Amino acid sequence: MQGGVLRLVEKTDVLIIGGGPAGLLTAIFSKRYYPDKRVVLIRREKTVLVPCAIPYIPNTLGSVDKNIIPDQLLEKEGVEIVIDKVIKVNREERKVFTAKGSEWVYDKLVLATGSEPVKLSVPGSDLGNIFYIHRNKEYMEKLKNAIDEANDVVIVGGGFIGVELADEIAKMGKHVTIVELLPHCMMRNFDLEFCEIAETELRKLGVNIMTGVRTTAFEGDNKVKAVSISDGRKIDADVVVVSIGMKPNVELAKQMGLKIGESGGIVVDEYMRTSDPNIFAVGDCAEKIDFFTRRPVAMMLASIATAEARVAGANLYELNVVKRIAGTIGIFSTVVGDVCFGVAGLTEAEAKKNGFEVVIGEAITRDKHPGTMPGARDIRVKLVFSRHGGYLIGGQVAGGPSIGEIINLLGLAIQDNLTAIELATMQYGTHPKLTAAPLVYPVVVAAENALRKIG
Amino acid sequence: MQGGVLRLVEKTDVLIIGGGPAGLLTAIFSKRYYPDKRVVLIRREKTVLVPCAIPYIPNTLGSVDKNIIPDQLLEKEGVEIVIDKVIKVNREERKVFTAKGSEWVYDKLVLATGSEPVKLSVPGSDLGNIFYIHRNKEYMEKLKNAIDEANDVVIVGGGFIGVELADEIAKMGKHVTIVELLPHCMMRNFDLEFCEIAETELRKLGVNIMTGVRTTAFEGDNKVKAVSISDGRKIDADVVVVSIGMKPNVELAKQMGLKIGESGGIVVDEYMRTSDPNIFAVGDCAEKIDFFTRRPVAMMLASIATAEARVAGANLYELNVVKRIAGTIGIFSTVVGDVCFGVAGLTEAEAKKNGFEVVIGEAITRDKHPGTMPGARDIRVKLVFSRHGGYLIGGQVAGGPSIGEIINLLGLAIQDNLTAIELATMQYGTHPKLTAAPLVYPVVVAAENALRKIG
Repeated sequence: MQGGVLRLVEKTDVLIIGGGPAGLLTAIFSKRYYPDKRVVLIRREKTVLVPCAIPYIPNTLGSVDKNIIPDQLLEKEGVEIVIDKVIKVNREERKVFTAKGSEWVYDKLVLATGSEPVKLSVPGSDLGNIFYIHRNKEYMEKLKNAIDEANDVVIVGGGFIGVELADEIAKMGKHVTIVELLPHCMMRNFDLEFCEIAETELRKLGVNIMTGVRTTAFEGDNKVKAVSISDGRKIDADVVVVSIGMKPNVELAKQMGLKIGESGGIVVDEYMRTSDPNIFAVGDCAEKIDFFTRRPVAMMLASIATAEARVAGANLYELNVVKRIAGTIGIFSTVVGDVCFGVAGLTEAEAKKNGFEVVIGEAITRDKHPGTMPGARDIRVKLVFSRHGGYLIGGQVAGGPSIGEIINLLGLAIQDNLTAIELATMQYGTHPKLTAAPLVYPVVVAAENALRKIG
Repeated sequence: MQGGVLRLVEKTDVLIIGGGPAGLLTAIFSKRYYPDKRVVLIRREKTVLVPCAIPYIPNTLGSVDKNIIPDQLLEKEGVEIVIDKVIKVNREERKVFTAKGSEWVYDKLVLATGSEPVKLSVPGSDLGNIFYIHRNKEYMEKLKNAIDEANDVVIVGGGFIGVELADEIAKMGKHVTIVELLPHCMMRNFDLEFCEIAETELRKLGVNIMTGVRTTAFEGDNKVKAVSISDGRKIDADVVVVSIGMKPNVELAKQMGLKIGESGGIVVDEYMRTSDPNIFAVGDCAEKIDFFTRRPVAMMLASIATAEARVAGANLYELNVVKRIAGTIGIFSTVVGDVCFGVAGLTEAEAKKNGFEVVIGEAITRDKHPGTMPGARDIRVKLVFSRHGGYLIGGQVAGGPSIGEIINLLGLAIQDNLTAIELATMQYGTHPKLTAAPLVYPVVVAAENALRKIG
C-alpha cells in the first residue's frame, strides 16, 4: 500500500459486533443455520461477564472470576473471536474499521452493541468510589473491592438491579441505603402490593429505603463521603452504586446512519433486520415493540436478547418465517430477601396507563401441600386480563423459588394468547414437595377469580 | 309411613357422591356457577386425606393428622356434607338410598367414587402387616405405626407411589426393598434413562431394588415375615406395602347401568356427562381419553380430577362450551432421593408404541447461572415431538425443585399444540438464583436440538 499504513483486510461472511449474550448467541445460531459461512465476532472485552449475575458478584459468587461466559461456547461452534473495537462502518463497501487498524469486509453485519448505564450528573459526580454497573471485569473487580472495604453503601436507584445489589450487600453486614425517585422500589416493574412485599424484605435485611427523593449531590474530597438528597438529608457513603437505568448503545449505529427509534434503540423488524437489509441488530441496542401496546419500548433483558439472537441467526441469509419476534414480552424474576418475584407482560398499572380495560384475578395459596409440608410457604399470583376477550396480558408472582418457572409458564400463556377460561381449566401436575395442591393450583385459582368478576 | 321403616327423604338440586378432590371441587364449583342450588356431598370418610401426600405421612409429615383436607373448604362455600354410604341409585326416580337409611332425591347427580388399590392375590395375601394405599385415616394410621416398628419393609410395585414410599421409608433408616415386575422402576411413566436416574437415587438411599420379578407368596404366621419372589429368593419383611396400581371404583355405576369403558372407568363426554344426561362422573372413576392417542386410558391423578371437577361444576345445568376436557394429558412430578422428576404427555416409548413417528430433543444444562452459583445443579430435559407437524407430544425433566413448574409449562405447551419451532423461539425470563442461563434455557435448547434433527 503506497504511502499508507499497512492494514489487515479480511473478508468474512458474517461479522458480529458485541460479545454479550445477544452477539454470542447470534454467532452460534449463524453457524448452526449456515455452517459453511465464516462467522467472526468482534468485541472490546477480553472476558465476558454473565450480565444477570453481576449483582451477585460481591457476596453470593464472591469473585468476578466465577461470573464469566467461557469462550469455548463460541470456539466449539467454529466462531472466530477478535478482541478489538469497531470505530467506523462503511455500509456501501460493507467494510468495518477497527481501533487496532484492521478492516473487515462483511456480507452480513450484526450489531449487538448492548447498552450502557445512564449517568447521573449532579455536583460531585466525578468523585472516587462512585460506581455504575459496567459489564467489564476489571471495573467490577474494583467495585467488589470497594464494597469489601466499605461500611456504608448507597444505591442510587431502586429498580430491580439496585434492589438485588442492596439485598446482596446487606447480607455482607454492610449498612445499605437505597435512594429512589419513585414512591416505591421496583415500581417500574411491579404493582404496588408486590413492591411493598419487596420493601418489607429489604427492611428485614436492615436496608434503609428512601423513596420519593432525588439525589442532589455527592460530597467528599477525592472519594465520596456522603450523598445529599432532595429532602435535605445527607447519607454517609463509602461507596455509591448508581443504577438508574440503562440506555441502548447506538453510537455506531447513528454514525452509520441507521434508523433509530423513539425508545432510543435501533429500529428492527420482526426478523431483527435494521433499515439496511444486510445489517441486523439484536439485544439491548435494538428497539422492541411491546407485545400488547404495540409501542416501541426499551426493555433490556438478557433473556429477550437471546430470543432475538436465535431469530437473527436463523434469518441472516434466508427468511424463516416462523422464527420472528412478534412483539416483546417482558418476563423476569428476582429475589429480595426470602421472597422471589416474577413478572410477565403488563402490570395492572401499566395496562391501565396504556388504555386497557382490565380484570384482575388474584390467588394466595401454599407452594407445597398439604400446607403442613416442611418448607411450605405462601405464593401470591396476580393476573391481569383484558375485560373483553379475556386474554392474559400480564402476571405477577411472589413466593418461593418455584416462581422462576411459574412466570415462564405465564409468559408462554401470554405468547399463546390464552384467556382466563383456558387458564382456569388448564391441565397441570402437582406434587406435595414441589407445587401447590391440585385443589388450589394458584394460576388456575387466580384465573377463576378473574372469571367470577367478568361474570 | 304405614308398616314401613321411617325414612328420611330429602331433596337436593345437586348430589355428589364421594369426598376426594374430584367430589370436593365439583361441589365447590357447582355452588360458584349455580349459587342458588342446594349442593349436598355424601361421603363415607369422616376425614378426607390429601391423596398425593399419603406417601409422605410416615416421615416427612410425621402424622396422618397433618395430611387432612379441611371441611371448611366446603362449608364456607355453602356445600352440605353428609357422612354416609350410598348403596343404591334409582335413576328413573332420581333417588339415592344410603346405608344409614336416608333417601335423597336429586336433580343432578355427580359420581366421584374414586379408585381403589388393585389387590395382589398370592398365597399368604391375608397375613397381617400387608398394607395397601387406602385413603382412610384409621387405616393409614395403622400403616404408619407398623412402619415405625418395622426394620424390613418390602414395597411391592415400583411405580411412582411405590418409589415415593421407598424413598420416604428409607430416609427413616429402615431397610427397604422394592419388588417390581417390569425391568425398571417408574417404567410406566418415564423413559429408561430417567428410570435409571431414579434407581441410582434409590440405591444411594440404601433401597434394595429387585426388578423383573413377580411376588409369588407372602410367608409368616399371623403377620408377614417374608416375601417370596419368582426368581426363588425370599426377602425378610416386617411390613409389606402393595402398590401395584389403582382401579376405578365403579361398583355403584355398574349397578346403576351406566356405560363402563374399556379402561374400566365410567364413560363420560368432554363435559363429564355419563350416558345418563343427569349424571356426571369425575376423577379416578371416570374414563379419560388420551389427548394424543385418542384411546380410553386409566390415568388417576388428583390434578386431573380437579381439572375435571371444574368442568363438571360449570356444566351441570347449562353447557359452557369452552369448559371441557378435550383429551387428558398425564402431567405429574415426583421426588426420588435428591432428584425431582416430571413428565407430561407421552414418553418416547409410549409414543412409539402408539404409532407416532417422533423426533427427540434433549438438553442438559445447569438450573441456576452461572454454573458456579451456590446450589446450581444439572437439569435434564427430554422433549418428544411428532416428526410431521413438529408438535410437542411429551416432555420429561429431571433436576431440582424447579421441575415442578417446568413440567406444567410443558403441559401447557402440549395443550396449546405448540411446535418445536415455537418452543425454540419462545420468550422467557431468567434469574441467576432461580433458572438456567438465558443462553441455555433448557426447554428452548431441547427444542432446538429436535429442530436440528428434523433439518
